[in-house]
Amino acid sequence: MALDPTTDTVALTEALVDIESVSLNEQPIADAIEVALRPFAHLEVIRIGNSLVARTNLARGERVVIAGHVDTVPVHDNLPCRNDGTLLHGLGTCDMKGGVAVALNLAATVPEPNRDVTYVFYEAEEIAAVHNGLRKIAEVRPELLSADFAILMEPSEAAIEAGCQGTLRVDVVARGERAHSARAWRGVNAIHQAAEILRRLNEYDARRPVIDGLEYHEGLNAVLINGGVAANVLPDEVVVTVNYRFAPDRSEEEALDFVRTFFDGFEVTVTDSAPGAMPGLDLPAAKAFVATVGGDVKPKFGWTDVARFTGLGIPAVNFGPGDPSLAHKQEEHVPIAQIRQCEQTLRAWLAAS
Amino acid sequence: MALDPTTDTVALTEALVDIESVSLNEQPIADAIEVALRPFAHLEVIRIGNSLVARTNLARGERVVIAGHVDTVPVHDNLPCRNDGTLLHGLGTCDMKGGVAVALNLAATVPEPNRDVTYVFYEAEEIAAVHNGLRKIAEVRPELLSADFAILMEPSEAAIEAGCQGTLRVDVVARGERAHSARAWRGVNAIHQAAEILRRLNEYDARRPVIDGLEYHEGLNAVLINGGVAANVLPDEVVVTVNYRFAPDRSEEEALDFVRTFFDGFEVTVTDSAPGAMPGLDLPAAKAFVATVGGDVKPKFGWTDVARFTGLGIPAVNFGPGDPSLAHKQEEHVPIAQIRQCEQTLRAWLAAS
Repeated sequence: MALDPTTDTVALTEALVDIESVSLNEQPIADAIEVALRPFAHLEVIRIGNSLVARTNLARGERVVIAGHVDTVPVHDNLPCRNDGTLLHGLGTCDMKGGVAVALNLAATVPEPNRDVTYVFYEAEEIAAVHNGLRKIAEVRPELLSADFAILMEPSEAAIEAGCQGTLRVDVVARGERAHSARAWRGVNAIHQAAEILRRLNEYDARRPVIDGLEYHEGLNAVLINGGVAANVLPDEVVVTVNYRFAPDRSEEEALDFVRTFFDGFEVTVTDSAPGAMPGLDLPAAKAFVATVGGDVKPKFGWTDVARFTGLGIPAVNFGPGDPSLAHKQEEHVPIAQIRQCEQTLRAWLAAS
Repeated sequence: MALDPTTDTVALTEALVDIESVSLNEQPIADAIEVALRPFAHLEVIRIGNSLVARTNLARGERVVIAGHVDTVPVHDNLPCRNDGTLLHGLGTCDMKGGVAVALNLAATVPEPNRDVTYVFYEAEEIAAVHNGLRKIAEVRPELLSADFAILMEPSEAAIEAGCQGTLRVDVVARGERAHSARAWRGVNAIHQAAEILRRLNEYDARRPVIDGLEYHEGLNAVLINGGVAANVLPDEVVVTVNYRFAPDRSEEEALDFVRTFFDGFEVTVTDSAPGAMPGLDLPAAKAFVATVGGDVKPKFGWTDVARFTGLGIPAVNFGPGDPSLAHKQEEHVPIAQIRQCEQTLRAWLAAS
């Protein structure tokens, strides 16, 4: 299906949603976006895998990235898109084709922005980081991402969410010694040993540091617990998978130190780790954007590719239509008004003299 | 392979072990036992499924059951039987073809016992109770099991183990409310709620009642624990499977009452329940057997079909070769001396005037 990037952003969102693009199956949507952008002489279009970079080259004194991923989580009986007049319903409406539609429309219809813009439409954000399109661009053509500021159009209810919390996942293991449950005194029950792990979790007091005026909110939670051999055997091992969400004033190393100390006496194995991102609202490009958008800036609790930009030395914020808590839900939807609001805000910002 | 039931009990054990008889595949071993016993005029032989009953009918004033199951747990690279001169190694050596060999040999070689004997060789003890051969006989031909006393030749190191503890299995459920782990304060973590279940288990103080001079030892143990939705989601449910082993002075109902009170405030669902069996050592037939065997009588902690006989109103004990803690282990084995000791003890008891 051909996309018209100059059309209304709501119609464009619907068209993007109807091109199914579950992670690792982004070729059709990448083809459609590439075909839609190639005709515009004001854009340099580069394709890397199933990701696209479209850049203005106006030699402005400042360059900003406006980025969104084009993939979705798996289909769950929630396609095609449905428009009820107020909301668009369906897979990817919220996470994040509403934001992608806004970026695509601006790319096509703002030929002479007041700052150079690098639009990035990238693949494979919803799966393991090794596939991530933004990461691949940063590896093979890092100069393409060079910028003073980045706006990631992840859902944030059309408000600015700055920074993001890091995430660390560890397996905490309690051990025992097997025995038949009819003669329990001959063994050591690993599940009973795990009581201490859970006791400590219940006593955890969450840090809520204020950074650049934003209050973050950490969390330390058991997300999975598994143990047991058979219904008549005392188990010798229980694994409690714990997820630590940490404010961006802590490094990954500091986060791990905290968790190791917290679970002192138990085996702790890291299974996943990603750094947070400082809000960086004191940097000039960020300040200017905040002033244009107005309203309250909120901290980002979840992890997004904002942290990837921060890692590249580029201050970045989330700013996109949709409620982030609806992401990955079967019933995800996006308010039409928020799509229009994001479009108008960014258009005004890119047009201001 | 033809069995000679009059041969040495150790050779007979080896022959029985080499007839593979994993539960639900007992036809070959049942056929072999039937063929072996049919020639003996002093025995009435009845086949029910893959179980066999062989009875003397001498109109003695007393009748005893000598019983053993012929099935095993699955093969685990532990066949055929291996004789190292002291031990027989292999699947079923301990649980419980040593005992079956003794019973089979006595059936063939003691034509005029001092008390009538009902030998029972039954199928499907190692799997769900619905398949149990002893249970089937009790259902379709209960008169065949009528007796004053029963000896179950389960491994007990050639000593008498009397009574058995009951077993109750319940699922104890802790509930919460799902939330993304980046915004944990919006949910209730079910795993953290389960801390209280484990805390109570750690405070459990095991009853050790003395019954007929035997000290039992109860146990309350989590055997399985499972909870979790995904690595970034606060789980809304954790199931802790708890096994209560209770002394035979408690009924199944009393056991369940205890567990419900113990886990007050949590959902408790019964998934398995079997009553204990009182030792019954004050009954005349049991007293006579204990006097003949001599030595210490021990309490039986694990559950065996002794409880099934008790349910039928027949006092019963375990008395067989082998260490019960080796049952179901790949390396199970039985001391040759214990096979001979059990055979000699029972032969003397059946011959005494």
